[in-house]
Formats: sequence, C-alpha cells, structure tokens
Amino acid sequence: MKDTIKVSIAGASGYSGVELLRILTRHRHATVEKLFANTSAGKRVGELYPWFAGRVDLVYEQYTAEAACSSDVVFIALPSGEAMNLVPGLLERGKKVIDLGGDFRLKNASLYEKFYKHEHTAKSTLAHAVFGLPEWNRSQIKSAMLVANPGCYPTSAIIPLAPVLKEGLIEKNGITISSLSGVSGAGRSASVDLSFAEVNESVKAYKVGVHQHTPEMRTVLEEIAGDQVSLTFVPHLLPLTRGIYTSIYAPLARSVTQGEVLSVFQKYYSGEPFVRFSENAIPEIKNVNYTNYIDIGFRMYPDNNQLILLSAIDNLIKGAAGQAVQNMNLMFGLDEREGLL
Amino acid sequence: MKDTIKVSIAGASGYSGVELLRILTRHRHATVEKLFANTSAGKRVGELYPWFAGRVDLVYEQYTAEAACSSDVVFIALPSGEAMNLVPGLLERGKKVIDLGGDFRLKNASLYEKFYKHEHTAKSTLAHAVFGLPEWNRSQIKSAMLVANPGCYPTSAIIPLAPVLKEGLIEKNGITISSLSGVSGAGRSASVDLSFAEVNESVKAYKVGVHQHTPEMRTVLEEIAGDQVSLTFVPHLLPLTRGIYTSIYAPLARSVTQGEVLSVFQKYYSGEPFVRFSENAIPEIKNVNYTNYIDIGFRMYPDNNQLILLSAIDNLIKGAAGQAVQNMNLMFGLDEREGLL
Amino acid sequence: MKDTIKVSIAGASGYSGVELLRILTRHRHATVEKLFANTSAGKRVGELYPWFAGRVDLVYEQYTAEAACSSDVVFIALPSGEAMNLVPGLLERGKKVIDLGGDFRLKNASLYEKFYKHEHTAKSTLAHAVFGLPEWNRSQIKSAMLVANPGCYPTSAIIPLAPVLKEGLIEKNGITISSLSGVSGAGRSASVDLSFAEVNESVKAYKVGVHQHTPEMRTVLEEIAGDQVSLTFVPHLLPLTRGIYTSIYAPLARSVTQGEVLSVFQKYYSGEPFVRFSENAIPEIKNVNYTNYIDIGFRMYPDNNQLILLSAIDNLIKGAAGQAVQNMNLMFGLDEREGLL
Amino acid sequence: MKDTIKVSIAGASGYSGVELLRILTRHRHATVEKLFANTSAGKRVGELYPWFAGRVDLVYEQYTAEAACSSDVVFIALPSGEAMNLVPGLLERGKKVIDLGGDFRLKNASLYEKFYKHEHTAKSTLAHAVFGLPEWNRSQIKSAMLVANPGCYPTSAIIPLAPVLKEGLIEKNGITISSLSGVSGAGRSASVDLSFAEVNESVKAYKVGVHQHTPEMRTVLEEIAGDQVSLTFVPHLLPLTRGIYTSIYAPLARSVTQGEVLSVFQKYYSGEPFVRFSENAIPEIKNVNYTNYIDIGFRMYPDNNQLILLSAIDNLIKGAAGQAVQNMNLMFGLDEREGLL
Repeated sequence: MKDTIKVSIAGASGYSGVELLRILTRHRHATVEKLFANTSAGKRVGELYPWFAGRVDLVYEQYTAEAACSSDVVFIALPSGEAMNLVPGLLERGKKVIDLGGDFRLKNASLYEKFYKHEHTAKSTLAHAVFGLPEWNRSQIKSAMLVANPGCYPTSAIIPLAPVLKEGLIEKNGITISSLSGVSGAGRSASVDLSFAEVNESVKAYKVGVHQHTPEMRTVLEEIAGDQVSLTFVPHLLPLTRGIYTSIYAPLARSVTQGEVLSVFQKYYSGEPFVRFSENAIPEIKNVNYTNYIDIGFRMYPDNNQLILLSAIDNLIKGAAGQAVQNMNLMFGLDEREGLL
Repeated sequence: MKDTIKVSIAGASGYSGVELLRILTRHRHATVEKLFANTSAGKRVGELYPWFAGRVDLVYEQYTAEAACSSDVVFIALPSGEAMNLVPGLLERGKKVIDLGGDFRLKNASLYEKFYKHEHTAKSTLAHAVFGLPEWNRSQIKSAMLVANPGCYPTSAIIPLAPVLKEGLIEKNGITISSLSGVSGAGRSASVDLSFAEVNESVKAYKVGVHQHTPEMRTVLEEIAGDQVSLTFVPHLLPLTRGIYTSIYAPLARSVTQGEVLSVFQKYYSGEPFVRFSENAIPEIKNVNYTNYIDIGFRMYPDNNQLILLSAIDNLIKGAAGQAVQNMNLMFGLDEREGLL
Repeated sequence: MKDTIKVSIAGASGYSGVELLRILTRHRHATVEKLFANTSAGKRVGELYPWFAGRVDLVYEQYTAEAACSSDVVFIALPSGEAMNLVPGLLERGKKVIDLGGDFRLKNASLYEKFYKHEHTAKSTLAHAVFGLPEWNRSQIKSAMLVANPGCYPTSAIIPLAPVLKEGLIEKNGITISSLSGVSGAGRSASVDLSFAEVNESVKAYKVGVHQHTPEMRTVLEEIAGDQVSLTFVPHLLPLTRGIYTSIYAPLARSVTQGEVLSVFQKYYSGEPFVRFSENAIPEIKNVNYTNYIDIGFRMYPDNNQLILLSAIDNLIKGAAGQAVQNMNLMFGLDEREGLL
Repeated sequence: MKDTIKVSIAGASGYSGVELLRILTRHRHATVEKLFANTSAGKRVGELYPWFAGRVDLVYEQYTAEAACSSDVVFIALPSGEAMNLVPGLLERGKKVIDLGGDFRLKNASLYEKFYKHEHTAKSTLAHAVFGLPEWNRSQIKSAMLVANPGCYPTSAIIPLAPVLKEGLIEKNGITISSLSGVSGAGRSASVDLSFAEVNESVKAYKVGVHQHTPEMRTVLEEIAGDQVSLTFVPHLLPLTRGIYTSIYAPLARSVTQGEVLSVFQKYYSGEPFVRFSENAIPEIKNVNYTNYIDIGFRMYPDNNQLILLSAIDNLIKGAAGQAVQNMNLMFGLDEREGLL
C-alpha cells in the first residue's frame, strides 16, 4: 500500500476545482491538504458549497507558493493567464503541477497570445509541459513534472479524430468540428448571458473562428498526423449543465467501411480504460454523465464522401478534473483508474 | 375587407395542429371551423389543451371528406403516410390543401418510399404539389391548390444555403448540415426516449444518414442550383421544447468576403418579411421563439476554406404552422404577414 | 375607432418592460412612443433584444419627465425605490401612470420601509394610488391616475383566496401560501445565484418570512375580508423561465363541499375575462404560458380540515405586463381584453 | 475484512434498480450477482443503459425464486403490487429482502388497498416487515429479514417532522406538507404526460388528497407521536430529473425559538451520518444531488404561529436506492455509510 499523495488545488472554488475535490475525496491514495481560492479565503468549503458539508472539512486559503509546497502535487484550476504566474515557482521547488487551464497547452507562445489575447510571461517553461492526453502521451505524462491538462473541447475532438487521421482514412484538410457544450463549461461567474432565463429554451453558436481551443486541436492533431491539418471549430452553448457533444464531419481519403473504422479504433483504443466505442452505438451525453469516459460513435456518409465521428464527454470530468486525476495517477505510478470508477 | 376564410385542420390534436389553431385564432381573415382528430373525437379542445379554454370553443371530430368540404382550405397535420389518403379526395372537391407532413414534398415517389419506408399511394397527385417555401416559390404558391409545407429542418437549411449556392459562392459538394432540435419536433407521443428524465441533461445525434428530410433538402437545393448537390445532414435532439438551430459548413468556391455574403443575402432576402440577417449577429433560438422569423448569421472561415452559415427558427412556427399560414395567406391573396406578427 | 393611446415605458430593458413592449405592439389602440432605459440609452431595441428586430424600430432613451410627457400614459418597470422619484412629477403634469413595481402598493409607508429596506420618499402620493387588481378594483381603476400594478405572487394568491375568504368558507388565520416561481421573476441581472448551472436541477426556498410581497397579500386580503388575516408566505425558485404556481392551504371555517366552492367562484368570477376555474381541473403552468389568464383549482381536504387552492399564472403577463395592460385598457375605457388574447 | 455480500435486484431496469446498481458497484463489501428484469431479459446492462458499459458485465434475467436464492439479499424495485408475490417465497427460503416499493410499508392492509387500489395478497407477511428509516428504526432494521424501504416523499417529510412532533413543539393536527418532485420519481415509462415537451416549463400538483404516500406519512408519524396526527400532503411535478423538495407548515404548539428547534434536531440527529441541518441554512436540491443526505432547514413564522420545515433529498438515493443500501449495511453489520460517501 502506497503512502498517500498530498494534494493542493489552486482555484478551488470554481467548477473544475470543486469537481477535483469531489473526485479526490473518493481517491484512496490521495489526500487534499489545501484549497486555495483568494476571493473565498477564510470560508469553509461547506459554506460555499453545502454539498461538501459533513464530508470535507477544509477552509479556503490565500495562495502562496510556500503553503502549496507542503503538497506533492498542485492542481491549478484558474482562468488562463494566472497559472503562468504560479507554475515556474512550483517547478523550482520541485513540485509536480497539473494545470487545468490553457497556459501551457500551446508550445508556440505567439499562437497563445493571438488566441488568449494577453502576453505569455513564462515562455521558458513551455518546453517542459507535457500535453496531458493519456491516450496519446501516456509515457511522457508518467515522467512529467508539468502536465498541461487538455481543454474540454479538444479532448472531445482529438480522441475520435486522431486514429482515423493517423491511419489516413480521412483527409487532413476540410475537417469540421461542431461542438455543443453545457453551461458549466463557461465557469462560475456572474453574467446576464449565462443566467437561466437567457440560456434556457435557447441555443447559440459563439466565438466562431476565434475560440482559444482551435489552435490546441490543430497543433495536437498536426503532431499526430505528422503534417499540416486544417479544421473548422464551432462551439455552441446549450441549456444543460454538464456535458459536451462533438460532431465531426471529415472528408474521406478513400473508400472505407464501417468495419475498417472499427478496426482502427480497436487498434488504438481497445486497451484504453476510459474510451468506449462500438460499431453501432450513437453516443449520448447522459451515458457519460459524472464519468471519466469518452463515448465515440461513427458513421460512413458515402453520398457526401464523409466520415462522421460523434463523441460525448462530461466536460467537468473527462474534459477537466477527471482527466487531471487520470494524469496524476500516471505521474505517481498508480492505477490510472483510481478514483475514477 | 375580405370575407373570412373557412379553415379545417386534420390532425388537430398534435403539436403542429395545435400551433395552427393558436395562430389562426389571431388571424383577422380566417375562421377555424372544424378540428379533426380521430382519437380525440368528441372532446372539446379546452379539455385536451386547457390553454385554449375560454378562447376556442370547438369539439374535435372524426375526419370525413364531406365534413372537411365546408371549408375553403384544409390544413393536414398528420403523420407521414396519412395525408396521401385524404388529399386526392379534397382536391377533387375543389378544396385547397396545405399539408404539413412529408407526403407531397418529394416529386420522386421512389425516393419517398426509400426514406419514409412505406408505399406512396397518391403518386399522380405529386405533380400538382407546390413546395411551400415562400422565399423561393411565392408565385407558384399563390396559384397552388396543394401546398407541401416544408419540413422544419429543410426550412432551416435551405433558406440560408440557397442564395450562396445559387450565386456560386460555395461548392455544390461537401456541404455539411448539423442541426439541433427541441423535443416538440418529435411530435406528441408516449415514448420512454422522449421522457423528461431521458432527454434532460443529455444530447444525442439520431437517424444519422437516414433522416427523411435529407432528400427534401437535396432535391430543393439541386433545383435552385440547377445541378447535383451532395450534402451531409445530421440532426441532434436537445433538452429544449421548441426551436431548431442549424449550423452549415460549406466549402468556398472562391475567396469571398463577409461583405459579399451580406450582399448576396440582401439581393435575395431584403424584402422578405420573415428572413432576418446581418453582417455580425449570431442567431439564437430565443430570438425567434414564438415567431415566424428565420434568423441567419454567417462567418468566413478562411483557414479551412469554409463558409459557415447559422440559422435559428421556431420549429413549430416557421418550421411548421407559421409557414403554413404564410402559405395560406399567399394562396388567398392576403398580406403574407397576417396573423404572424 | 378610437385615437391611439401614446405610451412610454420607463425601465424598458428589463423583463417586464420587454414584455410590455411585446404586448403593446399587438395592441390595436396603443402606440409605444418612447422607451426609457438609462443604461441602454442610445441602443436600438433590436440590438439588445434581437427578438424585436424588424418589428419595433425604437431607440432606448435616457429618462426625463419632459420626454415622458408627450405620452398619455407612462408604465414604470423599474426596481423598487425608483418609481417614487418619477411618479409625483408625472402626476403633476397630468399623466396617467401604471407602476409595475412595489412603491405604491402599500398604503402604509412604514410597512413599506420595513420590507423594502429603504425610505419612502413620496408618502403623500400613496393615497392616490389604486391597487390594480381588476377583479376586485375595477371601478376605481377606471378613474385612477396612478395604478399600482400588483406583485406577481400576490396576484397568484389573492385571486383564489379572496372569494372564499370573503364568503367565510375559510378561517382568517393559519392560511399557508406556498409559491413556486420561474427565474424571470428575479429580473434580468448578472448573478451567480441565477446562472443556469446553479438553478438547473435544483429548487430552493428563499426570503422565508421576509419577502416584500407578504404585507401586500395580507393588507389586500384584510381589506377584502374586513378583518385581520394571518398568513404564511414562502416563495421557491424553480428551474423554469416563466410561470408561478401557488398552492394555498387554508383551514376550513365550516364543512364545505366542492360544489359550494365552485358556486363561490362562479359568483365572483363567472364574468371575469381572465380567470378560469372548474370543479375538477388542476392548474398547470403550461396552460397559462404566454397568456393573461389565471387558472384556479380547488380541493377539499376534510381529513385535515383544509381547503386547498391551486393557481397558475405567467409571472410576466398576468403577474406583471399583461395585468398592467389590462389596467391601461380600463383606465382608457377600452375593451379590457384588447391586446391580451 | 468481511466476505462480500451477494446481492440480487428484482426490477433492475427501472430507475431505482439502476441506481442500486450504480451504488453497489462502488460498495466494497457487496457484489451484485443477478439482475432480474423480465421485459429486458437477455439484454446486457450496458445495452439498455450504456452508462454501465465497460464497468458492469451482467445480463438481465427472468426472475425466479431459485435464481434469486443464490444471493444473501434481494432488493425489490418493482411497481407496487408485484413485491407481494415474491417476498413470502424469499423469506421462506431464509433470504433477506429489502423492498423499495410500497407493498410492506403499511401494516394495515385495508389502508393499503384503499390507496393502492388493489388487493393485498401477502397480509400475513406484513407483521414481519420493518419500516426502513434508519434514523428512527435502526435497531429493528439490524435484525430484520424484511425491510420496507420508505417512500421518497415520506422520507423527505418524516425526518424533519418527527423530532419536533415528538417533542411537542408543533400541534398534531393541521400539518401541511407541500412537496416538489423531479420526474424520475414517476419511474421509467412511456407516457405523454412525462414527455419533455409536456413537463418542461411547467409545474402541476397531482394526486391531491389521494397520493399513496399519505397514509405512510401519517401512520409513521402517529407511531412516533404516540397519538393521532392529521396532515395534508400535496405533491407537485417539476421540470427537473432528480430531487425532492419538501416544505412543511406546522402550527406551533407553543412559543418556540429558532435555538430550541436547533436543540431538538441536535438531540435526535447530531450523530446521524446522513442528516444535515443548521440554524440558518436553507436547503437546496443541488446540495444533495447524487448523495444520500437529507438537508433540513427551519424557520419560525410567529405572525401566523407556524414552524416552517424545509428538506431536500435526491429522490433516487436517500429517497430510494441509497436508503436501501443504508438498510442493507445495517442488516449485515457493516458501516452504515459504506458505498454511500
């Protein structure tokens, strides 16, 4: 039996931070020691989130590197632009870091600055970051000190796309990614646009052509394909709390059967603990609700020479906190599934 | 002041029939005389739909051609396969008919039989039907005896696609149509799959590659383009009651600016009473809720050589009953907007 | 044919103001001339609310008494505490005013100050205000210069309670009013508590014992009963956009039959254009959605010596804008139903 | 370490059965051996509920007493009227049984027949059943062979009411219980009334005065109070999937302070693992979502001489499957919280 891993969470009062706490309290080899949340410092978790009353008895603290350093690993669940201020100091002190935000996902700082609209102040750290997609980077994650946990949309798109792209079933250009997200993906914030009366009984596309997850998808897929990739990504906001549904329309590179696509998924994912797919099933968000699974479906559309890929995840779990714990498990040599079943 | 038009509705107890009734009670030149609904025959409208209590005092009746013939026009809001039994008899008696179902939308009976999975028993009537999309068929509608009211998904896709396709801004192949629909689109029926606990907090694609609205979109667009068109259509079911959101991804035929697209929409739709578009706005379902409008947005996506078109409609109004009343107004020489503002 | 009534709305960018605009654009004898909304001054209505694009071509203005005075009647849809600054000036200028907020509903200024938590600065105007519940104050409303439009919860509770209280069917003490409200009742504001992710899949009671509508219910019912009344009022917030459902539990004063209760409702409400009730029906919010109706149901509960009254309204219509227009119709001698069917 | 408990579930394809399976797969001392579901016999769990794919590899079977008897305990999650056919046979074979339905909750068979509208065919077994409310019957549950798991509404009402009733803070007559339930409480069935388009954006009361949980609440409370109790119970259906919110309005027996009520709850529940309460907090469904907790709030309402009690539970967990597992834990001498945190 291993000793327990001591964990801190910076940004512990947002939706991803709370979900981390929820998962980690069921983890048999990790103990959450410190919760940092500057605006809630001094409050008990159960005050802000009564869901935790009686189960977690921690008080939110102001973040300091010293306080964080009593932990073995620090999860960062802060808005983009904030992690870059914390990470170098933690790495210097020899701490492992898992960043759930976007600051270390793009190796190219100018691409970051173009999409995130602010300067990157920790450029020299970028080279040390490992993109935390276990299905494709497992071995590097195991030895990483800094894991950049993937974005929710990229997780939902890269996992289904990567195998068929790498195997040459689809073209590298003209790929369309149409994603539907629940409202928790926008974070916990006061905004008329996110209020129930505005979101309920409505749907809208947003950030068309400028969403910051676009270059993340493209660069990761280009690395996997070993070539340039061009794609369209359009996110939509839906009246549900949790979940992402991604529909991908890709031009076929050649005539392909449903069985061949199945074989490709079997080749890459048959041993994966959190990837589910089958020849016939169509994913539904409710099937992955509150789980770390990604469900994948696929259909040939020969009339229009396309392959359709469909995926469903829980944006707060496989799309954020669950995948982060999956990464932690890998970084500490634990069973990858611990805390996630 | 015109005399009032006498109206019957066959299938008056489903969602589209009810919406027709709701609209027609506000129409200044039409009077609903008879409501046919075989399974509810003998019940007052207000019993089945208390929303109408105190405003509409009609009793559902068993359908007979004789009873229907006291009206000037019969709306048919029945499941596909049923209108074809009623329409020939009504036309013989000189009645105008507006069919909200799919029986007379496809001129090609074998295409109908392939997608609707049953025989077409009124093939000789097909030639007389006019596809009831006022924006493209206004003059034929005006003189039609039988209008095939467009499907909800085709309405949401054809109106934005037609101008850019006709003007050659986009390729005729490789078009992707990804649609999101509220649950009322599935009709009023007892089904575990449509129950609140199954639909809420979930999303799913359905009928991928086999949805019966696919040939309708294709044939109408081919007629407009004057050439073969290939497209992918994937509908998704969402946790909302009313509304369709359609996102279209089309390969650009040449380099185009946002302003050029705007000009094309202005050319075709600037006088249209129920088409709204602008250079910058992104449609949202709530903006068309309970209206006969279609809202259209567009964005160039040069990185992937695509034009993105977005549209929002209320599936029960512009996608069904509202457009049917718009057609009735045209067929009877009324102001097209009557009852719809 | 009457000349048109010229209307202004102060607070025209909140949910009640917008609903007023929606109703008044269908009103055949009223024209909205000016929309006042200080924070949105300079914007077109269709920019802030694209629902109105193409139908209403007005620009929000900064409020001034002079600008408002070109109208025959001014609706005020502002947060409580603001109307009291505007109303005296409008009355001095001879304008009719309908206030949708709480400033003039309570004759007793100290009761107002206790529940609304700020000073009342227009105490001398209170005596001129008529409580705008047409079912009970129709004649005074007809000649009023200032109508205090009832609160949404009081509307839903007073209309069912008043007849059985006045007729002595129930006790004047021990009445319980348990109300359920959609989120639009909280107004249009940026708040984490009202965000979709917080409201969806949840329910909470709020302002227990301190809700500002409590004294409004009690004083109006006391006036009708001609005696002191004691009641409990608990509002709950629900995951729906529109609607209030009120369940009332009242101790029976004597043994009563279902038929007797029906007779009492018939006595008071059989001619009322917007009150629906029946011996057997149970109200549902969907039946009053987007209407000015209040639906009432009732059941004897002899085992516990109670009468149960149930009511449903659309909080933005009968609970706000619709009732305000009903009052305007009365004040100007129009058919009370104009614009509301 | 204990040997594992072998478990069967009869009625394993409904919502409560599925929730049992979800909980028991995380239970460290129980193993689900058999899932009985006659209409789904032969299907894998993951086929009917893809949520379980990859985690549970069981096939639904036709129920037989013999098949069930390989287990140590049988959970029955069938519609009322069906458990009574199974239970006597299981008890004869020495098996422990936990019935999640209503067949063994009422000792009085004629009361059962009045409310459940069918005959009780296992009357002689009634005497052996223990009402499975751990907070009040813990010691009997420990030694029970047959536990009648409480109804969802009674759980939400009895836990807050029992202490203040037993301590004489409130009157035994005139108690009002107003409950709000999510749709999963109605079970998994094909019904127009439960369809998304009918439930969304609506609320209704139902079964007023005739709900079968009414005698359950009354008889349990009478036993606790040692006297006759009269109460009103009105359930309402809400547009949410999971959760019950119960608001109770009870006449005060004497003048009481908020602190006294707190003391009473502390006296009865301070050691309870799944009861949370505090002097100031107002329960919200989201705080108990997917947990076995009941959250309780209370407020004095001296103006109307009432005590208001508010409670929130997850109807499928503390209101059904979670409480059933809590009972199993007690019956087998395990930590009561096992599998439930």
